[in-house]
Amino acid sequence: MKQLANIRDVAKEAGVSVASVSRYLNKKGYISEEAKKKVQSAIELLGYKPNLVARSLSTKQTNLIGLIVPDITNPFFPELARAVEDVALSYGYTVILCNSDEEAEKEINYIEMLKQKYVAGFIVATNQLQASHYEDLDIPIVALDRMIHDSIPTVSSNNIEGARLGTSYLLEQNCQNIVFMRGPSGLGPADDRLAGFLEAIEGKDITSHIIECPFNFEHSERIAKKFLTEIEGIDGIFASTDVSAAGALKAAYSLGISVPSNVQIIGFDGIALAGMLTPGLTTVAQDIYKLGAIAMRMLIKKIEDIELDDKVIQVPVELVVRGTTRSELR
Amino acid sequence: MKQLANIRDVAKEAGVSVASVSRYLNKKGYISEEAKKKVQSAIELLGYKPNLVARSLSTKQTNLIGLIVPDITNPFFPELARAVEDVALSYGYTVILCNSDEEAEKEINYIEMLKQKYVAGFIVATNQLQASHYEDLDIPIVALDRMIHDSIPTVSSNNIEGARLGTSYLLEQNCQNIVFMRGPSGLGPADDRLAGFLEAIEGKDITSHIIECPFNFEHSERIAKKFLTEIEGIDGIFASTDVSAAGALKAAYSLGISVPSNVQIIGFDGIALAGMLTPGLTTVAQDIYKLGAIAMRMLIKKIEDIELDDKVIQVPVELVVRGTTRSELR
Repeated sequence: MKQLANIRDVAKEAGVSVASVSRYLNKKGYISEEAKKKVQSAIELLGYKPNLVARSLSTKQTNLIGLIVPDITNPFFPELARAVEDVALSYGYTVILCNSDEEAEKEINYIEMLKQKYVAGFIVATNQLQASHYEDLDIPIVALDRMIHDSIPTVSSNNIEGARLGTSYLLEQNCQNIVFMRGPSGLGPADDRLAGFLEAIEGKDITSHIIECPFNFEHSERIAKKFLTEIEGIDGIFASTDVSAAGALKAAYSLGISVPSNVQIIGFDGIALAGMLTPGLTTVAQDIYKLGAIAMRMLIKKIEDIELDDKVIQVPVELVVRGTTRSELR
Repeated sequence: MKQLANIRDVAKEAGVSVASVSRYLNKKGYISEEAKKKVQSAIELLGYKPNLVARSLSTKQTNLIGLIVPDITNPFFPELARAVEDVALSYGYTVILCNSDEEAEKEINYIEMLKQKYVAGFIVATNQLQASHYEDLDIPIVALDRMIHDSIPTVSSNNIEGARLGTSYLLEQNCQNIVFMRGPSGLGPADDRLAGFLEAIEGKDITSHIIECPFNFEHSERIAKKFLTEIEGIDGIFASTDVSAAGALKAAYSLGISVPSNVQIIGFDGIALAGMLTPGLTTVAQDIYKLGAIAMRMLIKKIEDIELDDKVIQVPVELVVRGTTRSELR
C-alpha cells in the first residue's frame, strides 16, 4: 500500500513549517501569499488529502489536544479554556475538554482514552497524579497553573508575588487583624499564595489567622460566617480565590458587617465574577487569557519539536482595586 | 487486508448494545457481570483491539462529540458543558469544545473541521446558520437551548412559562413600573421570554418598558444605569439572563438605589453566579445540568440509531426566591 502524503511531507515539499500548512488547511491565522502558493503546489504535487483520521494513523498523531481541568464550572477554568481553544484553533488544532474533579482515577482514565485517540498533546491544569505518570507518557505536555515536575514545561502566575501584593495593600489600608483564607494544603498555587502572605506580614505588628478553605463558594461562605462570628475584630480578609472572597463578602453581608467600612476583602484570580459583585471585589488579577494562550503556544512548539526558550514561564499579576477595600482616592 | 473487528461486531457477537461495550471498554457506567463476561469473550474471539483511530477509519466514525457553544466564558455554558461531558464520558465519548462567538463563519469552519475528524455527532447551542447547513450534514445533531429546525431534536427550557412565572412574581410583589430587559431580538429563547412577559402583563394595570440588552455584564450595567436614570419610578426589573440581572443590580448599587426596597430584580437562568451575588438574585432557574445531560443522551440515541420517544423536550423551570425581591416571609 502506497504511503499517503501527510502534512509533514507537504511542509517539506513547500519548504514551510507544518504550522503554516495547518493554518492554510484550516484557513485560520496568517500565512503569506507566497507561502500559500508553495503549499498549494505541494498539495497538488503530492496528491495530499487532509483526511485527518487517515493522517493520524500514518503519523500516529492527530491535531487533537486534551485539556484536563479540575472542573469547568469553577469560573477560573472557562476563561483558561477559552484562551487555549482560541490559540489552538488558529493553528488548526481542536480541544477535547476533560474534567478530572481532582480525582487521580478520572485523570488516568482520560489520559488513557486520549492516548488511544493519538492526541497530539495535553495541557494539564490539575495534578493529582505522580509526575511519573506523565513522564512515561511520551506525548508533549504543558502544565498550566500548577507545576507537575521540573521536566514538564509550566505556565503559571507569579502567585507568591501576587499574595505579597495583596497583603501589602491590606496593610497599607490599615488592616490590623487579618484572616488569610488559604486554599487546599499541598496544592501548588495555594501553598505559594500562603508563602507570599506570610512573607508580607513578617515582622509586622498585626494579628493574623490562617484558615484553610476549599475553592468553592458555599464552603467559603460557611467558613467565613464561622470565623467572622468567632474571631473578634477582624478588619481584613485575603481570600486565596475570588470565589472564596465572594463567599466571604456574602457572609459579611448576611451578618450585617459592612464591607469595606468594617471589613476589607481582597480576592485572587481576577475572574469576571469579581467585577460583577456589589461592591466590586478588589483582587490580585491573573492574566488568565495570557496563561492559557502561552500554554497552548508552548504545547504547539513541543508538538512541532521546536525548542522552548524557557521551560517555566511566570506571568505577572496585578492588583485591581474595586469597592471591597477602602481607598482615599475613591 | 482483513477487516478489523469493530465495536459493533463485538456488541453483535456478545448480544449486547454498543453502549454496553463502550461502557465496558471505558470502565464507566453500569454493566452487569453477565454482560461483562459476554463482552470479554467476544473481544477475545474477534481479537478486537480498541484502537479508536483505526476504528474510526473502518466505521467512518469516532467517539468524539462536537459541542458548539457561543462562548464558554458566558457562565451559562460551562454548566451545560459539564453535563454534556459527564454523560458523554459515561458512554465512552469525549467532547470537543468549540466557541462560535455567534459567528456563522466560525460555526461553519468548526463543522467542516470536525466532519474531517469523523465526529460521531454534534450538540449545537448556537444557531447562526440556516437550518439547511445542518440538514445537509448527515451527522447526528441535537440542538440545545435553541431550536434549529423541526427536523432536528431539541432540548430547551420552557422559556415562555419561565418568563410568565417571573413576571407574575414581580406583579405579586406589587411592582407597578417594570422594565423587561429582553435579550437579542431574533434569538429563540430571548423571543420566548419576551412572549412570556407580555402574556403575563396583558390586561394588568401597570407600566412596562421593553429594553433590548445583550447577554453581557458590562453592556447590561450600562443600559440599566441609563434607564434607571432616565425613567422615573421604576420598581421592578426582569432581566432575560442572570448576567444581565447582575449588571442591573450593580447599576442600582452605583446609583444608590436600594434593592429590593426601591427596585426589585429577577433574573433568568439559575447559574451559580445568582447565588454568589449580594443580595442573592431571585431568578427563574433552568435545570442547566439536566438540559445538557438530556441533550447528550438524545445524541447518543441518534448515533446508535435508537428511535427517540420525543424529538422536542422542554425541561421545566422554577422560581428561586432570594434577596433581590421583597418577601413577606423573609
